[in-house]
Amino acid sequence: MNIHKFVMPEVIFGNGAIEQVGESCLRLGATNVLIVSDPGVIEAGWLDVAVKSCKQANLKYTIFHDVTINPKDIEVEKGCKVYIENECDAIIGIGGGSPLDVAKAIAILVTNGGKIHDYEGVDKIRNPLPPQVMIPTTAGSGSEVSQFSVIVDTLGQKKMTIISKSLIPDIAIIDPETLSTKSARLTASTGLDVLTHGIESYVSLAATPLTDVQAKNAISLVSEYLRPSVASKINKEAKTHMAMASLQAGLAFSNAILGAVHAMSHAVGGKYPVLHGDINSILLPYVMEYNLLATPKKFADIATFLGIDIRGLSYMEAGKKAIEYVKQLSMEIDAPQRLSDIGLEKDEIPHMSVIAFHDACMITNPRDVTVEDIEEIFRRAW
Amino acid sequence: MNIHKFVMPEVIFGNGAIEQVGESCLRLGATNVLIVSDPGVIEAGWLDVAVKSCKQANLKYTIFHDVTINPKDIEVEKGCKVYIENECDAIIGIGGGSPLDVAKAIAILVTNGGKIHDYEGVDKIRNPLPPQVMIPTTAGSGSEVSQFSVIVDTLGQKKMTIISKSLIPDIAIIDPETLSTKSARLTASTGLDVLTHGIESYVSLAATPLTDVQAKNAISLVSEYLRPSVASKINKEAKTHMAMASLQAGLAFSNAILGAVHAMSHAVGGKYPVLHGDINSILLPYVMEYNLLATPKKFADIATFLGIDIRGLSYMEAGKKAIEYVKQLSMEIDAPQRLSDIGLEKDEIPHMSVIAFHDACMITNPRDVTVEDIEEIFRRAW
Repeated sequence: MNIHKFVMPEVIFGNGAIEQVGESCLRLGATNVLIVSDPGVIEAGWLDVAVKSCKQANLKYTIFHDVTINPKDIEVEKGCKVYIENECDAIIGIGGGSPLDVAKAIAILVTNGGKIHDYEGVDKIRNPLPPQVMIPTTAGSGSEVSQFSVIVDTLGQKKMTIISKSLIPDIAIIDPETLSTKSARLTASTGLDVLTHGIESYVSLAATPLTDVQAKNAISLVSEYLRPSVASKINKEAKTHMAMASLQAGLAFSNAILGAVHAMSHAVGGKYPVLHGDINSILLPYVMEYNLLATPKKFADIATFLGIDIRGLSYMEAGKKAIEYVKQLSMEIDAPQRLSDIGLEKDEIPHMSVIAFHDACMITNPRDVTVEDIEEIFRRAW
Repeated sequence: MNIHKFVMPEVIFGNGAIEQVGESCLRLGATNVLIVSDPGVIEAGWLDVAVKSCKQANLKYTIFHDVTINPKDIEVEKGCKVYIENECDAIIGIGGGSPLDVAKAIAILVTNGGKIHDYEGVDKIRNPLPPQVMIPTTAGSGSEVSQFSVIVDTLGQKKMTIISKSLIPDIAIIDPETLSTKSARLTASTGLDVLTHGIESYVSLAATPLTDVQAKNAISLVSEYLRPSVASKINKEAKTHMAMASLQAGLAFSNAILGAVHAMSHAVGGKYPVLHGDINSILLPYVMEYNLLATPKKFADIATFLGIDIRGLSYMEAGKKAIEYVKQLSMEIDAPQRLSDIGLEKDEIPHMSVIAFHDACMITNPRDVTVEDIEEIFRRAW
């Protein structure tokens, strides 16, 4: 048996939890925080709630919100300047995966210096980071608990995956009420991202019993609550379960890492301004078909987590049922179905395949992969 | 919905993991560690393995092993002196629950001063503790991941339960190989303690979805692997699964707290030099019978975790099957069955019941309890 490692931040979960952000920063010794967010979160009113809590805790604060989807190296550099100019000593991230990943990337630079490109890959961070409190508002990225930050290299037109235990925030505050302002479209996209995290981490070469229990629960919760969550902004039960699914999928993939879906999705997301969850959900069934051979038993398990009755089926047959289910769910909630639908140019595939081949997430994919294999999967999903 | 909090240490799990203790201390900035252990662990050879790893990491170290079962305030004070005299800056605990709880209690005193009695109850610790790395060798206490330390008040002849997030170690190192030196008797006792942790935390008033997944897995693993683990010292599969069960039960109860079994067990263990797991396993079915009314659905769930087919049964009927199963398992592995067998004097029951009533673990018991109710449960189990 290999030696398993499992790390997670302190988690505060529940409706109204966001009001604890000020006190949480105080506990970490913060006096002057940089709050990283984005315009959508500000418009939804969640930044105001966080700011109010910081004021009540007598914290100084500065807001930085120049963050776009698939966040970029230049945004990280800007945020880093703002942190230093305002002499901040802690960071809050509030929003979807983008503000959270930018917040973490800023945390790297302010104590480690250099450019964010220097930290691409695994375990490149040397100095401890400032205290970090993360508040996800999309039930998708899992960034609030993960050792990942994914930032676009603007010149290279690719996503850089940075993996380090230092990137695990100190405290993750998960408030299901923040999900009530999300559109059906975004709920579908981020929810399928959660499913992708659950499935990729469950079949990952680095999966352990500790990550399996989290992945299993996340997959089951998505299969039960993603549809009602897409259908209604105010279904509190569905929002709470999807927030929990996102958290558990985040704990799973932070410790088990991911696979080919994310490696390929990072390649596409580095160039196209498309929702990360959309690229993932398009690729997921095609990568599952490719990976099925590597671990039929685990794909059969996934079928049961999805609520499929697999009695009488072989592992391969059960795994195929799981793949059909994923395709069906994606169609039911109106997610895009093909890479051509989201604007990918077909002649980009060979180049994207090379980038995906070198992504850090490919290392734990359960089936061996060549550049040609990736091209073939891309073509099927195009 | 209430707001849930969940905290755990970094976990390193696997055969040979103990060899990472030196490097783990280095990562926490330690230079000079106090190693808290007990004579049984030393005899089994595990202290030597830990010491070797510390030497390889060029750490200074001092060994303290004056620890007994149901560890005492006076042992904590002795260890505290040793820490200060040797100018230590970090603590390793290696052994069963006793050395681990003493190590944590020493950590409290060396940075917070006073007597260990000052910290009884919830959240009494003010100053941060020194770095703590814990290595359990019994697959029982869960102390390596919990926010608990339980120490005997020698004069008061009772156990003091200290609960604080500060008591969660920095790193927990769980090495299933350490279980290969345990007697069948100790394996049975600590394994039933794990079952008690799983069941009490699952029905606790403070249970959350995050603790439920851990409790569920722990209960299932015990039902499958405790018998083979008692039967064979060298069954590696059984040892690994019991180590995981202990870890997951520890994560569950650290965050969901416990109930009447532990409250009552602490009262008995404060006076009688009896294995904690034995007292728990005797009390467990009687407390389950008492608590069944409070949450029939959860007890029916527990029946399914134990592998019982509950089709066609009401929740109450299914819950009763779970109770029968627990009694049966305890008999099969030759655990003591009655409090009179372990020497409890019947006329102590009223006094013990008052102590149990005031134990911090009673707060989260799912059914209301009076001193008279506790007396009645004690009498049934006597």
